Amino acid sequence: MGDKTQMVQGFKASAVAAGLKKDNALDLALIYSEKEATAAGVFTTNKVKAAPVLLNREYIAAGKARAIIANAGNANACTGKTGLDDARRTAELTAKALDLYPGEVLVSSTGVIGQPLDMGLISRAIPDLVKALSPEGIVSAAQAVMTTDSFPKISQFEGRAGEQTYRIQGIAKGAGMIMPNMATMLCFIMSDINIAAAGLQKALLASVEGSFNRITVDGDTSTNDTVLALANGMAGNGQLSEKDYQEFMDGLQQVMGELARMIVRDGEGATKVIDILIKGAFSASDAIHAARTVANSSLVKTAFYGQDPNWGRIIAALGRSEVRMEEGRVAIWVDDIQIVADGLGKGIEAEKKAAEKMVQKEFSVTIDLQQGPYQDRVVTCDLTHDYVSINADYRT
Amino acid sequence: MGDKTQMVQGFKASAVAAGLKKDNALDLALIYSEKEATAAGVFTTNKVKAAPVLLNREYIAAGKARAIIANAGNANACTGKTGLDDARRTAELTAKALDLYPGEVLVSSTGVIGQPLDMGLISRAIPDLVKALSPEGIVSAAQAVMTTDSFPKISQFEGRAGEQTYRIQGIAKGAGMIMPNMATMLCFIMSDINIAAAGLQKALLASVEGSFNRITVDGDTSTNDTVLALANGMAGNGQLSEKDYQEFMDGLQQVMGELARMIVRDGEGATKVIDILIKGAFSASDAIHAARTVANSSLVKTAFYGQDPNWGRIIAALGRSEVRMEEGRVAIWVDDIQIVADGLGKGIEAEKKAAEKMVQKEFSVTIDLQQGPYQDRVVTCDLTHDYVSINADYRT
Repeated sequence: MGDKTQMVQGFKASAVAAGLKKDNALDLALIYSEKEATAAGVFTTNKVKAAPVLLNREYIAAGKARAIIANAGNANACTGKTGLDDARRTAELTAKALDLYPGEVLVSSTGVIGQPLDMGLISRAIPDLVKALSPEGIVSAAQAVMTTDSFPKISQFEGRAGEQTYRIQGIAKGAGMIMPNMATMLCFIMSDINIAAAGLQKALLASVEGSFNRITVDGDTSTNDTVLALANGMAGNGQLSEKDYQEFMDGLQQVMGELARMIVRDGEGATKVIDILIKGAFSASDAIHAARTVANSSLVKTAFYGQDPNWGRIIAALGRSEVRMEEGRVAIWVDDIQIVADGLGKGIEAEKKAAEKMVQKEFSVTIDLQQGPYQDRVVTCDLTHDYVSINADYRT
Repeated sequence: MGDKTQMVQGFKASAVAAGLKKDNALDLALIYSEKEATAAGVFTTNKVKAAPVLLNREYIAAGKARAIIANAGNANACTGKTGLDDARRTAELTAKALDLYPGEVLVSSTGVIGQPLDMGLISRAIPDLVKALSPEGIVSAAQAVMTTDSFPKISQFEGRAGEQTYRIQGIAKGAGMIMPNMATMLCFIMSDINIAAAGLQKALLASVEGSFNRITVDGDTSTNDTVLALANGMAGNGQLSEKDYQEFMDGLQQVMGELARMIVRDGEGATKVIDILIKGAFSASDAIHAARTVANSSLVKTAFYGQDPNWGRIIAALGRSEVRMEEGRVAIWVDDIQIVADGLGKGIEAEKKAAEKMVQKEFSVTIDLQQGPYQDRVVTCDLTHDYVSINADYRT
């Protein structure tokens, strides 16, 4: 699949330490397309939206963009009119340094809520940031947007449209406040495919639904969630056939699914990634609701941490959710080990085998409700001592 | 208010170590009324109901009972037909030893889900349990129903009905899986008031709504939640006047409110009790929903643990809830220190003062949404390292 650190043709990236993080780490990233690109975005469903989210929603309406500037260390959320002015000013300063219009620069922020952005630090850093742009800059950019993340997240895909080869590359940050309808997560997608803005937006929405909307760390949803995609058309393909478009959607979903899984693996304090699979749900909404209720139960998540196949907690979580279920029909597996049949435990031996599976860093829990034909899945992580440490100490 | 360890007239209690807990601790409790008592009960809303809950719902329909037998160490939940037979057999054995009808004995269980009750241990213990009945037995009984609780919970009230004085005494256990619509909590209320079963049931429902349904530890709801009340009429009062009934309701609410607060104080790993007060909500349902969303946010609860007035997390939680809110109208206080006005932080000095308040073991967080006239409150606790330890290790 090629070197992940090599950017898609026509794109450059860079990062600098502007001083927004405490420890002089990289905290300001820039992604730049040499040519005009079609642009699409998906944003948080939280009623409280950070300033850069409000700005991007305005800019993205044009369906075009050339650059994304993103900072960590400060979310620029709950900052009122000043915050919006600061986001706008960030776009202006970046546009000026890149010789673009402000509306061509998307802005993204992550970090602490409720504190004004230090515009002095940002304006001083922008010239160096622009100077550092490079086709090898994507790893630094991925590092710069990390907050409590422990590793940079990059994924890519190569496909064909007609006679032409194109690439999709994405970076993401996650770690906490991860839950349905995205999370404190940022994801930036770059592609050289030639695609209309409407098609890109549709593909992005579908891929978010199948990737970032199917993961959870702690059930909280952030004010800053942002997925942006730029496609600069340099692959030179003509109009996409239906088959080519399907392949692009699959590729995008693959890239975003991989990034989403990395986010869970890197969830705050997480030691395990668990796939919660619901089968036999009465309705599609029951299926996803059941998966989310189990995936977000603190009691279930601590049992995962303890490698304890405590299926009683799973059944109790299903029972308090609003999905149609009957205790006597529920079946539960850990990987391929069945621990519950007809609502009753399969005994100590089965639980021992299941506990052995739970020693692994990744395993699945399959729940068959036997109420209907619907299924869905959510990827979650365990709830650990380190989650508490990270979040009790975050600002101090 | 008198000695809490002295039971209400006509009641006796006892406890023994039957061997259901691992450490030879008290794990089987009995409450007994010398005279026939009117009885009322409120049970879990979880669709998965433990065997004793199913049995009690059947027995309580008669509006009368004489005894409650309760065990810790095993919830007798997700145990199918065998579980229901075991609960029924427990009532029968107890009734026989006390010379009662089985339908006069209510049964309650708490502990691990999904394992069959050891009926050998229970049947062997019942004769000693009956022998040990004493008017001073209430503390032992409160200890016997503890699971991860760290202290026994007893509360009482004295009132007057007409010329007569009556008492209300209650015991409870809680600790984890505590959330709206009760929790893994058991509460047994004894009174010598003379009251009809219908009136007792109505008062009990109202008091649950104002007490146990206004606390949360981790957002999980148990399969075993049970509140039972017995009133033996020995105070000798005549039919209750409206005013007397109101006073009884207030007294019951006071006793249950006190027990509910003790449950939060003793929440698994909790170091702090926090009152979340919502003001200015658009509707009554918005008010309670906003309070519960904030009270259950892992990010908010870890910030409480870290004594960090991280109001951004509170606003983010409100934003993802489905209540009507506008960021620019929200005001937040920690005790009497305002940290947010019009959706914006009041600055470092205010946060410092708020952080000092958060050092206390109990404080309040008041949120004014400025959307309407409705208010509500939920009592919660912080999310700590010990919560994770307790729940990761529970069965092992």
